[in-house]
Amino acid sequence: MRVLNVAAAQMGPIQKAESREEVVERMLAMMREARAQGADLIVYPELTLTTFFPRYYTTDKAEIEQWFERDMPNEPTRPLFDLARDARMAMSFGYAELTPEGRRFNTSILTDKTGAIVGKYRKVHLPGHSDYDTERSHQHLEKYYFEPGDLGFPVWRTLGGILGMCICNDRRWPETYRMMGLQGVEMILLGYNTPSVNAQKNAEGPSKRIFHSNLVVQAGAYQNSTWVVSVAKAGVEDGHPLIGGTVIVNPDGEIVAATEGEGDEMVVHACDLDDTAFGKKTIFDFARHRRIEHYGLITSQTGVVLPP
Amino acid sequence: MRVLNVAAAQMGPIQKAESREEVVERMLAMMREARAQGADLIVYPELTLTTFFPRYYTTDKAEIEQWFERDMPNEPTRPLFDLARDARMAMSFGYAELTPEGRRFNTSILTDKTGAIVGKYRKVHLPGHSDYDTERSHQHLEKYYFEPGDLGFPVWRTLGGILGMCICNDRRWPETYRMMGLQGVEMILLGYNTPSVNAQKNAEGPSKRIFHSNLVVQAGAYQNSTWVVSVAKAGVEDGHPLIGGTVIVNPDGEIVAATEGEGDEMVVHACDLDDTAFGKKTIFDFARHRRIEHYGLITSQTGVVLPP
Repeated sequence: MRVLNVAAAQMGPIQKAESREEVVERMLAMMREARAQGADLIVYPELTLTTFFPRYYTTDKAEIEQWFERDMPNEPTRPLFDLARDARMAMSFGYAELTPEGRRFNTSILTDKTGAIVGKYRKVHLPGHSDYDTERSHQHLEKYYFEPGDLGFPVWRTLGGILGMCICNDRRWPETYRMMGLQGVEMILLGYNTPSVNAQKNAEGPSKRIFHSNLVVQAGAYQNSTWVVSVAKAGVEDGHPLIGGTVIVNPDGEIVAATEGEGDEMVVHACDLDDTAFGKKTIFDFARHRRIEHYGLITSQTGVVLPP
Repeated sequence: MRVLNVAAAQMGPIQKAESREEVVERMLAMMREARAQGADLIVYPELTLTTFFPRYYTTDKAEIEQWFERDMPNEPTRPLFDLARDARMAMSFGYAELTPEGRRFNTSILTDKTGAIVGKYRKVHLPGHSDYDTERSHQHLEKYYFEPGDLGFPVWRTLGGILGMCICNDRRWPETYRMMGLQGVEMILLGYNTPSVNAQKNAEGPSKRIFHSNLVVQAGAYQNSTWVVSVAKAGVEDGHPLIGGTVIVNPDGEIVAATEGEGDEMVVHACDLDDTAFGKKTIFDFARHRRIEHYGLITSQTGVVLPP
């Protein structure tokens, strides 16, 4: 048994006007609750520190950069690292990263139980569009605000296991899980901000959106025999609704814990990393069963090429 | 609208003693029913013509080869091709293929509405094991009876769309769907024989097995915005139970038709191939969103390589 007691810390909405300090206060409250429940690890969602700003279009550099963190930890987030270290709790959260070179990424970090950052991931699969789109009911300008992650899909030996991260739209792409699965991942941490309505098909509402979210996460977990901790930022941000649907999924693809609402809400589950072993050595023993000689297009071809 | 009226023709059990002729009679009965319902295409399962013989171990060449077809069509299966042509119905079914060179494959074919074979697929992902295994509650000797398919994952322009095939265990591997997705597939036909109990974990019974089957098929459909027709051979073959769970899944990953039992049972659904367009041009527009520079391990590495 290698049990990790994991707290999936769903965040309710963060309004545009809310400060980092206000958000961190809410995060600290959840961390204290996680500590009371004996959590080894707390997982917050994508872009935890701010509203989901890619819904807003601006060309003003200062306005853009207000959403980004130049350092991590920094002044507003320091209390998180301090409390995590005191509580001997690892943590993961997402934020908008501005590098010293002026590059912008949608990033998450993972700390160990001393509060040291042991892993950084930059979102590879940016959804949405790079220019203002007059056809949409709301904007999704991730390709405008961020460049695609440049770190690939690393995994880290920490907390007695092998952990990886991905962010939001990454979860819809089986390549994401497989890249980590090929490195023996045992738990994937992921956060998301997912609008409750498809901006290009308004008939697609929250129940369909949560169905899709669960479907891809459960399949990714099963097909790579790994735990997945999938955490929402949820609720209505300045009139823009986001789905909840935070889940912890076991290596059999089953949901073992789920939130019920769209506010700050935590679910905790004792995840045995040894539960990943059976699938990895039987039906998903990659070494015996994968046939890479037939997978060529997956890495040689980005888009669709229709048959003659 | 490009509507294909598809009949998913689940087959009940086929006992070891049943002849090809008896099986073909059952298939013909379902084809007549499909014709009465106006089907454009009828899809039968993997190894439709025989019992699921990889559960039996023998070294006797004649005993092995009795399960295999040297030609297709051949004498026993000719009536299927004749009726399909008369009914102006395309069809797909699986069988054990013995090539003139003595090679053995787990194969399926697809005909057009004239009864001409337009596509052949040979199963790439063979599950199970290649030697008799004393640890298992039942054998699963596909790696003994067959070699892995050598045709890759082709798709075919037929029936007004782009169709592909895969077989049974292929459905658990996201690479299967993605290879076809990268060629613009609009409908994937797949048949399976899946034991109701995991031979290496007897606590894993039929409800879990059907859950896994649906999970991977629904995810594969959604992630590539394609229809999937997933057809079981079901029921108890000489004391060995197989799951049912035949489904037709739409490009949104939703089950739109499903069988209820474990016998010969058909479900028919009008599948509009144009329903695949929305997903392919938005969230799963591969050309805009895939990042092949970060997928290298998927084709360069077969098995798991653990981090240092």
